[in-house]
Amino acid sequence: MTDLGLVSGHGGRIDAMARAFPSAPLPWIDLSTGINPYPYPLPPIAPDAWERLPGEVARAFCESTMAESFRCDPSFCRAVAGTEVVIRQLPSILRAQRVAVRARSYADHAESWRLAGAKVVTHFDPLALAGEADVAVIVNPNNPDGHRWTVEAIEAARATLAHRGGWLIVDEAYADLNPSLSAAPLAGRKGLIILRSFGKFFGLAGVRLGAVLATQEILSSIEDRLGGWDVSGPALDIGAAAYADHDWQAATRGHLAVRMQEMHALIATSALEDRGGTDLFRFVRGSDANALWRRLAEQGIAVRRFVGDAHHLRIGLPADKLAFSRLARGLNP
Amino acid sequence: MTDLGLVSGHGGRIDAMARAFPSAPLPWIDLSTGINPYPYPLPPIAPDAWERLPGEVARAFCESTMAESFRCDPSFCRAVAGTEVVIRQLPSILRAQRVAVRARSYADHAESWRLAGAKVVTHFDPLALAGEADVAVIVNPNNPDGHRWTVEAIEAARATLAHRGGWLIVDEAYADLNPSLSAAPLAGRKGLIILRSFGKFFGLAGVRLGAVLATQEILSSIEDRLGGWDVSGPALDIGAAAYADHDWQAATRGHLAVRMQEMHALIATSALEDRGGTDLFRFVRGSDANALWRRLAEQGIAVRRFVGDAHHLRIGLPADKLAFSRLARGLNP
Repeated sequence: MTDLGLVSGHGGRIDAMARAFPSAPLPWIDLSTGINPYPYPLPPIAPDAWERLPGEVARAFCESTMAESFRCDPSFCRAVAGTEVVIRQLPSILRAQRVAVRARSYADHAESWRLAGAKVVTHFDPLALAGEADVAVIVNPNNPDGHRWTVEAIEAARATLAHRGGWLIVDEAYADLNPSLSAAPLAGRKGLIILRSFGKFFGLAGVRLGAVLATQEILSSIEDRLGGWDVSGPALDIGAAAYADHDWQAATRGHLAVRMQEMHALIATSALEDRGGTDLFRFVRGSDANALWRRLAEQGIAVRRFVGDAHHLRIGLPADKLAFSRLARGLNP
Repeated sequence: MTDLGLVSGHGGRIDAMARAFPSAPLPWIDLSTGINPYPYPLPPIAPDAWERLPGEVARAFCESTMAESFRCDPSFCRAVAGTEVVIRQLPSILRAQRVAVRARSYADHAESWRLAGAKVVTHFDPLALAGEADVAVIVNPNNPDGHRWTVEAIEAARATLAHRGGWLIVDEAYADLNPSLSAAPLAGRKGLIILRSFGKFFGLAGVRLGAVLATQEILSSIEDRLGGWDVSGPALDIGAAAYADHDWQAATRGHLAVRMQEMHALIATSALEDRGGTDLFRFVRGSDANALWRRLAEQGIAVRRFVGDAHHLRIGLPADKLAFSRLARGLNP
C-alpha cells in the first residue's frame, strides 16, 4: 500500500500555510497538529535554569518525575529534547536491515530508516511481523487513526523480537491521553524502546522535551550521540513540574474528552466519516479531501492532509468557541 | 603528550562538587565554567514560542540575526541546540580516519572522534598537520589557554585540507569575545565547519543554542540527524533578540575586559602564573594545582582542574565583589 506521508511535510508548519494562502482571514487556526490547545500553565522558571548548563540534579529530578508518571523504573528513563532527534538516531544505534513500520502512521519512522538504507515494510500490524523483522515500529495510540495495541500484544512481540536480537520501538507520543495503554511499566526489558513526548499532551511543543524508556545500553548510546546537555534547563524544570502534577493531567484528560465530544457531534453533522483518532485529533474520511483541505485553508484553517491519499484528513481540536465555530462553518458551508 | 581531559568530566557540574564537599560554605561559587556571569537580560517570551512547534519563520529569523552578528552568509548558518550534539555527530558525518586535534583543548572533540574509532593525534598546532590529516580541529580562541589562530592561517589550512577532501573544524565557542578573530566570513567554503556557542558569551548556557556554519551539504546532513525541531521555540526567540543586540554585545565585551583586569591583578598577587585564557576565564599554573583545587573547593569555590596535569587550573570570572573577595581569600590564604 502507499505509505502515508504528508503533502507539505509535518503539521505545525503554519508559516508556510500563511504564505500559500495570503488572503485567508486572520488569525490562522492551526488544527494541523495534535498538540493540546490547553497548555500546562508555565511554572516560574528560576534564572539558574536559563543561565547555567543543565545540571545532573535537574536532569535526574525531571527523569524521576517522568518515570513516576509513566510508571516505569527511573533508571530506564532518559529525558531528551523531543523524540524527533531520537527517531533519527535509532537507525545508527540499532543498525537493522529489515524494519516493519505501521502503515498509515507518523511518517518520520519509515523515513528515518529508509534514509539509513534499511528495507522498510509497511503493514497494518507490524507486531505480526515480529518473527521476521529486525525492528518493528508502532505508534500507540496510532497517529493519525488512533489504532491501539494492548500491552499484552506488545510484550509478546517484544519477546519474539528480543529472542532473535531484534527491537520493538513503541512511539507513545499520545499515551498520556490513555496511560493504561502504555507499555512503560515494561521499560528496561530486552529489545524494547519506548518514546514519550511532552509537547503534545501538555500543549508545550516549543519546549522540546520527551523521553526514551529503554535498557541502559540504549540510553547510553543515545547519550554518546546527543551528549548530556541536549535538554534545556527550562525544559527540565517545566517537565518536572508538569509530570508531577497528576491532578492537572487527570483534569486535562477529562476536559479533552468533553471537548472531543463536541468534535464528534460536529463531524457527525458533516459529510465526513470519523475513522478514529485520539482526544487531540480526529482522522476523517471524505469524498474529496484535497478540495476540503483547500477550502478550509482559504478560510484560514490548517488541517493535515496526506501524500497519495485523496480521502483522509486529520483535524486537531480547536482551542475555543470561535475556532470551533469557524471550523463548523468550514465543514458545513 | 598527555591529553588534557577533566578530572570530574566537564565544568558546570556543581551538583557533584556540592556532594563531594558537603561542609563547604554556601552559596557555591561556580568558577569551573567559562560562562559569562552577566547574562543577557531575557526578553519577554511569547506563549506561542512555548506552545507551538518551533516554526520555520522563527528559525530563519534567528539564523539571519546570528549570521549578521557573525558576518557570514545566512544560507550557511544553521541554529542548533548547543554545539555539544554537533561535536558528537560530526564523526558519523565526516567519517574521517586521521584526526588532528589541538593538544590541551576542549576534550570532547578528541573524545568524540575516538569514540567513533578514528585515530586521533593531539598537537599544539593541528593546522600544521593539514597536509596529512583527514580532519583538523582547533578551538579559537583555545579553551583553556586562549591560544589564537589568525583567519589567514585558518584559510590556508582549510584550503590544504579541502584540496584533499578533508575538513577543518573551528570551534569558536568564545569568538564573540573577539569577533575580528572569527573565520565566520569564510563560512560556506569547501572543507570548513565552524561551531558557535550562544550560552557562554551571552551567559545563558541553559537555553541550549549554538550554530554550525558550513556548506549546505553539511548543514543538510546535520538536519537529517537532528531534525528541524532540535532548537526550542524560546531559544530561537532569545537568540534572535540577543544576536541582534549589538550594543549589548559591545558593552559586554568592554565590561568583561574591565572585570578581567581585576582578575589579572589578583592572579599577579598570588602564587599562580597566568598562562593565558580569554576575558571569561584564566588558565593558571601553580606548583600544586590539585591541592589548590581542593582548598578552594573546601571554601565552596569550584574551579576546573585537568586530568593528568598537577600544575594547571582554569578559573572563571567571579560574578560580583563577594565572589571576587572569596576567591581572593582562597588564592591568598
